[in-house]
Amino acid sequence: MGEVVSEIKLYGKWSSSYCMRVELALKLKGIPYESIEEDLKNKSDSLLKYNPVHKKVPVLLHNGRPIAESLVILEYIDETWTNAPLLLPKDPYEQAKVRFWANFYDQKFLPSTAPLMKLKGEEQEKAIEELLKIMNLLEEGLSKDFAGKTPYLNDETPGYLDIAISMSACTYRAFEAVIGTQLIDPQRHPKFLSLVNALKDHPLVKETLPQHDKLVAVIQMFRDEALKSSPN
Amino acid sequence: MGEVVSEIKLYGKWSSSYCMRVELALKLKGIPYESIEEDLKNKSDSLLKYNPVHKKVPVLLHNGRPIAESLVILEYIDETWTNAPLLLPKDPYEQAKVRFWANFYDQKFLPSTAPLMKLKGEEQEKAIEELLKIMNLLEEGLSKDFAGKTPYLNDETPGYLDIAISMSACTYRAFEAVIGTQLIDPQRHPKFLSLVNALKDHPLVKETLPQHDKLVAVIQMFRDEALKSSPN
Repeated sequence: MGEVVSEIKLYGKWSSSYCMRVELALKLKGIPYESIEEDLKNKSDSLLKYNPVHKKVPVLLHNGRPIAESLVILEYIDETWTNAPLLLPKDPYEQAKVRFWANFYDQKFLPSTAPLMKLKGEEQEKAIEELLKIMNLLEEGLSKDFAGKTPYLNDETPGYLDIAISMSACTYRAFEAVIGTQLIDPQRHPKFLSLVNALKDHPLVKETLPQHDKLVAVIQMFRDEALKSSPN
Repeated sequence: MGEVVSEIKLYGKWSSSYCMRVELALKLKGIPYESIEEDLKNKSDSLLKYNPVHKKVPVLLHNGRPIAESLVILEYIDETWTNAPLLLPKDPYEQAKVRFWANFYDQKFLPSTAPLMKLKGEEQEKAIEELLKIMNLLEEGLSKDFAGKTPYLNDETPGYLDIAISMSACTYRAFEAVIGTQLIDPQRHPKFLSLVNALKDHPLVKETLPQHDKLVAVIQMFRDEALKSSPN
């Protein structure tokens, strides 16, 4: 964009898949940035100032101007740094498809994983059934709407939807380890798994993903806290 | 876009503010379309075929290809028919702001109105308090992020965020009539109210808004049904 000096700070948390989305997008575009790790139990004044509405990470600060919400940030990055790789397809219909599925992922899929953190026994079984229904919709939808797109949903390089899915999807084994159940099934979710495997092989994804054991410990801590404060 | 023949169908419901968003966007752009009214208690095979994931209106069918989710459709319309008025600002930072607030409106503000439909007495009071907190965030945010933008948040013509807000905001009196409480306060919500008044004066908004009495009757019916199936 002909910008000579660009100061980019990312307020984030290493274990947040939303923050990893932004990190991965910046790395794919080759944009240098300063990473600022937040303590979410004692949020910095900067975070509260830059995201007064949600008070959440990630926040991207570009030359002093804050942008919040990971999917909004991905669009901003793609519009501001127009060099390859393009994160969003140029075709309006292809764009609509990736926006539709990124919204589905954030508003249906990810929320369906939350109840598993605080439930046990029969109630957990029910929550897993619900999650699998949504997982099956995702599998069918990706298979149909991105048929022939390989290895990524954006073809040769990971794009907006790959980035949206990548970090939480590539760490599913840490989630399964804490929940104690296999959720993703190679027979039923081949499109999803082939995408996850391709993403895991991408050098910038590898570099951005947290260590499995460290992540298991954090998810286990969340689960222990959630079970303690749950009525069951 | 140099397209000579374009077949556009909108599967919708007259009382849905999400559908009215799409209608308004099509009218603002001067795009002719066929409107297909759905019976949501007996959804058409077409709707189930074109939106198998959410099974919801609105669905825009453009030359046989379906697009679902109202905000996704607004982006599609603006990308496909690039004539004025532009719905999204060109500047990436301005774009990020309207996307951020449209998401806030859909994911925080509108969901906070839902509990009011099924609660009474003290519980309703609590839900109103919650709604007003979110309303205050919206008022502050719009005042700060769209200072000087007048009469619309997109300046001279309604844009993406105006459209997202317009239909549910312009009908707030129907909602207040059913709930039996004033929610929007001229003293506390001046930016929101000046926007609503400007929108209500726009000829295409006027044309698209449903009749107040007809809408009150539908909302009252929803509330009666919700109260019947609620444990209180």
